[in-house]
Order: sequence, then structure tokens, then C-alpha cells
Amino acid sequence: MARIITISREFGSGGREIGKRLADVLGIPYYDQEIIEEISKRTGYAEEYIKKISEKGITPYAIHLATSFSRYTSLENTQMEIIVAEQKVLKAIAKKGDAIIVGRVANEVLKNYNPMNIFVYADMKSKIKRCREKKPEEQYTDKQLEKKIKKIDKDRKEYYELISNNKWGDKTSYDLCINTSNVQIKSIIYPIARYIDNWFDSNE
Amino acid sequence: MARIITISREFGSGGREIGKRLADVLGIPYYDQEIIEEISKRTGYAEEYIKKISEKGITPYAIHLATSFSRYTSLENTQMEIIVAEQKVLKAIAKKGDAIIVGRVANEVLKNYNPMNIFVYADMKSKIKRCREKKPEEQYTDKQLEKKIKKIDKDRKEYYELISNNKWGDKTSYDLCINTSNVQIKSIIYPIARYIDNWFDSNE
Repeated sequence: MARIITISREFGSGGREIGKRLADVLGIPYYDQEIIEEISKRTGYAEEYIKKISEKGITPYAIHLATSFSRYTSLENTQMEIIVAEQKVLKAIAKKGDAIIVGRVANEVLKNYNPMNIFVYADMKSKIKRCREKKPEEQYTDKQLEKKIKKIDKDRKEYYELISNNKWGDKTSYDLCINTSNVQIKSIIYPIARYIDNWFDSNE
Repeated sequence: MARIITISREFGSGGREIGKRLADVLGIPYYDQEIIEEISKRTGYAEEYIKKISEKGITPYAIHLATSFSRYTSLENTQMEIIVAEQKVLKAIAKKGDAIIVGRVANEVLKNYNPMNIFVYADMKSKIKRCREKKPEEQYTDKQLEKKIKKIDKDRKEYYELISNNKWGDKTSYDLCINTSNVQIKSIIYPIARYIDNWFDSNE
């Protein structure tokens, strides 16, 4: 069976960097932009628009979609349409073979493919520091940056919990939870890659 | 600074085995029986009695100990005496040098020593399986075993939250959370050992 690795992450925790570096070390394809392109092809929406909507919170109305489709606004319909396309794209990727996927509730959407699921998190101080290093051109105060980080994670949580019955970040949904506070991402890639290798070998 | 590794764990998750194996691989002393012996020396209580009380839930009365010592029963006084001795023993160990300590709220008690803190957990099915493999002579039904596991973890949680302001098992209190469901403990020791090495190097 293909080796599917999903990485959920708090904003600023370095989860995306971990995903990309693991892909290099393990020689497993990392999917990100390709997912957006494929959703765009399937739905006809612009890539920029899809990026804006993906992993965003959704109005509670949309949760009841199944009951009465006609009651929803155009935005909510669009959001649901993109979610459905995203799930199809993720499954198509998993069918193709090994994959590393960051975010997108992939651990839940692909659970029939026995993925190894990782959650990456960190304390606020480390997340702020990492955001500053990544985008030194941004002129936020610490307070503004903290607010931004919390808002993005609130959106991710809402998006996750719309699709999953589990709580976003609850360790029982993940096989390994990595705290990147005060940790250099580079220095932990090799041990995580070995952990993943051995985890799959031990599960087969 | 000494390398202190603390391992908190759900009952049946294999946390103790991980601790012992890591000690072998890393060449770091693993403390367990020595802690009991030292508490016994310091308090005069029998080792068997200390084992019985350690990591057990404590009646809520004892939480208010500071207010009025005289109101407590003899058992509660004993429990508090053992907790105090345990904390002193843990700190004496940390002062001596590198150490691996399983349980005993060591991550909180030793936080000034910058420990690396690991939490080990698993789903109920895996925990039951592991308990059966460890003690095949026990005649529990699955239901009885599940009840026993839950009771022990409830005790650990109460004991932890008596000493710490944080929640037992909350991932933010740990540097790495390892889900051992369907995992062979042996197969993950080497990557965890490398992770610990690199974590300390990256933190120094």
C-alpha cells in the first residue's frame, strides 16, 4: 500500500517546512500547488480564489447543507463545492502512490488509505519568531501577529471540524505530535524520516 | 547541562518499555526502583507502601493541605509526605547528571532543568493487547481490563493535576507525543533516540 503522510499544523509551527524537507529526504512527492490547480480544473474557480477559501472557517449554515441546499448563499455553495472537489483530488493523489500532504484535513479524508498522521505545534513565542523569520518584510507588532496566528488557527479548526467528527489538534487523531518550540526544524528531519520509515514497516 | 528525559504515559501504552530501551540506546541512567528506595530511606515508609501510593489519586481534601494541616487524616498526611520526598529525590537525581524518569510528574517537578518531555499514548485496543502480552497470567475480560486501565489513568491524571497546573496528557506540556497504537516499540526506539539527541543539540 502507498505511504501517505499527512501533516496538520498550527500556523507558524514549521509544519509546512517539515513536510517539504521530509519529501526530499524520503523521496516522496509533496503535494500543495498541484492540489489547488486540480481543484481549479475540476470546479472552474480561479486558483487564487480557491486558496482564499481553503482551510477557512465556514458559516454554520453550510453544516446543514444536506438538509436544504437552496437555503444557502452563493458563497457557501462555492465553499462546499470546493471542499467536495478537494476531497476527490486528495483521494486521486492517494490512489496514485506515496504522498506527503500538509493540511486540508487529509488525515480524515484519506483514513481508508492508512496514512501516518503528524501534528506540528509550538508555543506562541516560537510561532511569532518563525513568522518574522519567514516574512521579515511584514510590519506587525507582536500583538498583531499573535492575533493573526490565532485567527488562522481558528479558521483551520473550524474547517477541520466541519469535515471531521474529531477535534483539530487532539493528539488521539495523530500518530506523532511534534512540538517545535525552540527547535531547529532542520535538526529533527532525519529522526522523523526514520520514525516514519519504521512506523510503516511496523504497520505492514 | 544534564540531559533529563521525562516520559509520561497512559497505562498499557509501552511508555515504560520505551524509557528502558532509550536508556540502553542513549547510555543514560534509567531511574525507577532507586527512586522508591530513596523515598523509603527518607520517610521510613516501606517500599511496597510507597509504590501503592505513588501516582494514585488523592482525596480533594489534601489539596487544601496548606490551609489546615490538622484536618487531614493520617493517610492524606502520608501521601503528602511521600510526594514531598519524591520531589526532593527527583531533584537530587537531576543534579547528579543525565537521567530518564518515567511518570512521577517529573516534567513539572524538574522543569528548571530544561528536560525533554515525552508523552506516550495509544488506543484502548492496543493498550489491552499490550497488557495481555505483558501479563498473560491475568484472567481479565476485555471489559475488566479496560476498566482497570481507565482507573489507573484516572489516578495518574489526578496525581499529576494535584502537583501541576497543567492538564495531564495535554500536548502543549510535552515536546513529543508518541502514539503506539499498532506500533512495535522496538522499531521506534532508534528514531526517538536520534530525535532526543538532535533536540538537545538544537536547544543548547
